[in-house]
Amino acid sequence: MEGYRFSTDLAVRFAETDAQGIAHHASFVVWLEVARVAYLAEHAGGYQAIRDQGIEALTTEVHVHYHRAAYFDDRLRIWTRCVDLRGARFRYEYAVERLAETGVELVAAGHTLHAIVDAVTRRPTRVPPCFAEAVARAEAQSTS
Amino acid sequence: MEGYRFSTDLAVRFAETDAQGIAHHASFVVWLEVARVAYLAEHAGGYQAIRDQGIEALTTEVHVHYHRAAYFDDRLRIWTRCVDLRGARFRYEYAVERLAETGVELVAAGHTLHAIVDAVTRRPTRVPPCFAEAVARAEAQSTS
Amino acid sequence: MEGYRFSTDLAVRFAETDAQGIAHHASFVVWLEVARVAYLAEHAGGYQAIRDQGIEALTTEVHVHYHRAAYFDDRLRIWTRCVDLRGARFRYEYAVERLAETGVELVAAGHTLHAIVDAVTRRPTRVPPCFAEAVARAEAQSTS
Amino acid sequence: MEGYRFSTDLAVRFAETDAQGIAHHASFVVWLEVARVAYLAEHAGGYQAIRDQGIEALTTEVHVHYHRAAYFDDRLRIWTRCVDLRGARFRYEYAVERLAETGVELVAAGHTLHAIVDAVTRRPTRVPPCFAEAVARAEAQSTS
Repeated sequence: MEGYRFSTDLAVRFAETDAQGIAHHASFVVWLEVARVAYLAEHAGGYQAIRDQGIEALTTEVHVHYHRAAYFDDRLRIWTRCVDLRGARFRYEYAVERLAETGVELVAAGHTLHAIVDAVTRRPTRVPPCFAEAVARAEAQSTS
Repeated sequence: MEGYRFSTDLAVRFAETDAQGIAHHASFVVWLEVARVAYLAEHAGGYQAIRDQGIEALTTEVHVHYHRAAYFDDRLRIWTRCVDLRGARFRYEYAVERLAETGVELVAAGHTLHAIVDAVTRRPTRVPPCFAEAVARAEAQSTS
Repeated sequence: MEGYRFSTDLAVRFAETDAQGIAHHASFVVWLEVARVAYLAEHAGGYQAIRDQGIEALTTEVHVHYHRAAYFDDRLRIWTRCVDLRGARFRYEYAVERLAETGVELVAAGHTLHAIVDAVTRRPTRVPPCFAEAVARAEAQSTS
Repeated sequence: MEGYRFSTDLAVRFAETDAQGIAHHASFVVWLEVARVAYLAEHAGGYQAIRDQGIEALTTEVHVHYHRAAYFDDRLRIWTRCVDLRGARFRYEYAVERLAETGVELVAAGHTLHAIVDAVTRRPTRVPPCFAEAVARAEAQSTS
């Protein structure tokens, strides 16, 4: 997808569906986190490496726009990019596609905002330079 | 809370926490749905009554802004109002407060957008008049 | 229900249903935990009070037998008792009933096993006397 | 693992952890279902193919014995076998291993019982022959 370089795939679990016969809308919020974890594993040594530095990344905002329903066992591709690192804050953007035999279609799009805090004091702290550099490298590639 | 008339209370479940020691951010999306179901039970005969009319209310957008972390066993009050009913669409707005001995504080705020579809054809259909009227009555009260 | 003195009620959330149109079977495991938390709040000063003593109660076994499906918005009553406290271990037993206008019916039954560990060392440690005494009082009542 | 031929791998999601810092015990019940779905995709044309025959597989019993805690981002291998097909009923057995650099260790073991029902009438119906044959082929291999 244009503007994105990184993606991760998953299949809709049966437990993630609801009595409307579709994936419950809260499941997407979990999938965006799965995508962030995969992004960090690819580009920044993993989420655990960040936690091991004594910091936590809190989620301060979630926004999801649902274009189409997703169904049990659908194969979804979650395009993910990290943008706007400033001080203690950064933003992820996402596009969720369904990979169907009949073609690819947009299922949802959204963004999340995050703040880095000290794991002990819970006070805001700057994004670690190694993380900022890893993201800069990853996203420089994505727009080249 | 000013501008809201309806609220429902719940306690944070242990299963809703995560390894950061706080309520996982996706849990809030489930709680907003719990609040909508309670709102409909109070004002419009219940969500099941709406489903029994052969229609489904899809969630087309979720937006949550997290102000503070919520913790296991926190008592939360979810203020809920339904606004902007137009054709097949409507919007809910929410404020989530923590009820603590030391006072009440805002934990999160957000909104969701919804579209009514025919349960069989999945095509958009107008909001049932009885639902629109029930919401109008509920929200007229809330601003008086 | 015979043999039980404590119960807690809840309603099936929409997010807890699946594409079979029923409550997902994993939801029951969460509800049993909700019932344990309510039991501890009633009888032993709360789960947080136990955690504040520097111990954790791990779940070492879960067993659920499903008799009937539960549906969205069903009102469920979870009968709960704590038995067999020995050393670092104890057992909960449960019966889950649906409260319907047409009468009460058994939806599920089960048990869980738990072990107390030191929160830091994660090594087994004896059940705190105050907890054992609280359970003894609660369950002595239940069989009188 | 001895006695098993089929396995599927997954990583523990952050949303699946709890405030004890470990994977919540209800998450395992979801993972067992993920493993059944993968087993059916491998051996019997997929769960959706079974649902398309107008039948549903209900879960009538869940049993999980937890040997060790699982943690965020742990790589788990879920060994899965289907046994005891009789009439409308069958049983799955599972062993959940952690794949660590220091070696493989057993995290949990368990079983689930299932009953086939007609999707419309919800009455028990015999396991479809094609499913029984697929399982017989799969498990004949597993003990050879």
